[in-house]
Amino acid sequence: MADRNAPGRFITFEGIDGAGKSTQGRRLARWLEQHGVSVCLTREPGGSPGAEQIRNLLVTGPAERWDPWCEALLLYAARRDHWIRLIEPALARGQWVICDRFADSTFVYQGSAGGMCMAMLQRLHDLALGPVRPDVTVLLDLPVPRGLERVRDRATGEDRFENRARDYLDRLRKGFLDRARAEPDRIAVIDASAAPGEIAHAVLDELRARLPRDTASWPTTAP
Amino acid sequence: MADRNAPGRFITFEGIDGAGKSTQGRRLARWLEQHGVSVCLTREPGGSPGAEQIRNLLVTGPAERWDPWCEALLLYAARRDHWIRLIEPALARGQWVICDRFADSTFVYQGSAGGMCMAMLQRLHDLALGPVRPDVTVLLDLPVPRGLERVRDRATGEDRFENRARDYLDRLRKGFLDRARAEPDRIAVIDASAAPGEIAHAVLDELRARLPRDTASWPTTAP
Repeated sequence: MADRNAPGRFITFEGIDGAGKSTQGRRLARWLEQHGVSVCLTREPGGSPGAEQIRNLLVTGPAERWDPWCEALLLYAARRDHWIRLIEPALARGQWVICDRFADSTFVYQGSAGGMCMAMLQRLHDLALGPVRPDVTVLLDLPVPRGLERVRDRATGEDRFENRARDYLDRLRKGFLDRARAEPDRIAVIDASAAPGEIAHAVLDELRARLPRDTASWPTTAP
Repeated sequence: MADRNAPGRFITFEGIDGAGKSTQGRRLARWLEQHGVSVCLTREPGGSPGAEQIRNLLVTGPAERWDPWCEALLLYAARRDHWIRLIEPALARGQWVICDRFADSTFVYQGSAGGMCMAMLQRLHDLALGPVRPDVTVLLDLPVPRGLERVRDRATGEDRFENRARDYLDRLRKGFLDRARAEPDRIAVIDASAAPGEIAHAVLDELRARLPRDTASWPTTAP
């Protein structure tokens, strides 16, 4: 959102489950706070009280509970609530907002992998949010077998987005990489199979490269 | 939906709260069943298990819980679920579906009275449902003071759509009448201040006039 006047920056983490989005988001938030940047750390679906209630409808119950369009409409109702109640006010206050998943996930999960028409999803995005987009999106890219291993090691209780077959994860990975190729200025692809410390380094390097004015005063210490 | 191949007919009742929509819907359903027509009687928001859960998000909590666009997105998520899970299958089986409120209510409550852009609501409708529209819509038109009296006599426990000021009801009434003027072939305006038996008569007369082939075998007995 180069034309946004709000002083804060909006950073999203994307990738398949198990890629390390929430770990790296928390790590970046901690580093920023330690260096004087006020941070709002959040996630989707959810992030605001109303959006969390919509999330409950999305992540519980049988997998086929909602058809893909109902799911997309619910996701965008939640996203709009999250945007207007939490993200936009935080950016206006000058905070950096770090969000675990945002619109790219809908395009990839419902579009690339779910078969929904991308142009129609874009129309829904435009209706619900207008030209909103992150300043920088970090795509944590993980080979699918590694992603499956990491998901298996967890017990989140939310199986709705987790129990997908391997070929489904393949389509997700490809969908994210396609988006990164289409918007290279916004989306930074980082190899998520590296050690967490290396990934955190790479994230800071990408932010420095993509937001030079905002990061000019940052120290070059390790994250 | 003149181009729909399903043998059933889709009838909606619209109007401000207190106009008698659910009473007349039930009465029409009873009459049709007595005359050999299989009926699916339903309502919005809600009508299917998923849509009823979305309805719970819409009708509980403080009035400003959702901004108008979140509300519209939730309403259309519910409407799509209702359509694909209940209404469309019922029509395909040859049932007549009688629905207490449908899309016209969204255009009137969120658009005419809520200030949302009608063209954007239409785009949302087209995205969520495509060209779906009722065969006949009965608009039960009631002068606002009468509507306020009837609402006051109830205790529904769902104040979300009920506690609106008089001028708000005025905008609602005007919004419904504007839609009837724009689609006179679909929307029949009936004076809801008449006695319930007279209104039921007028409803049947409108269905006979608008669906002559479907109603040719109907007896002319009073409803």
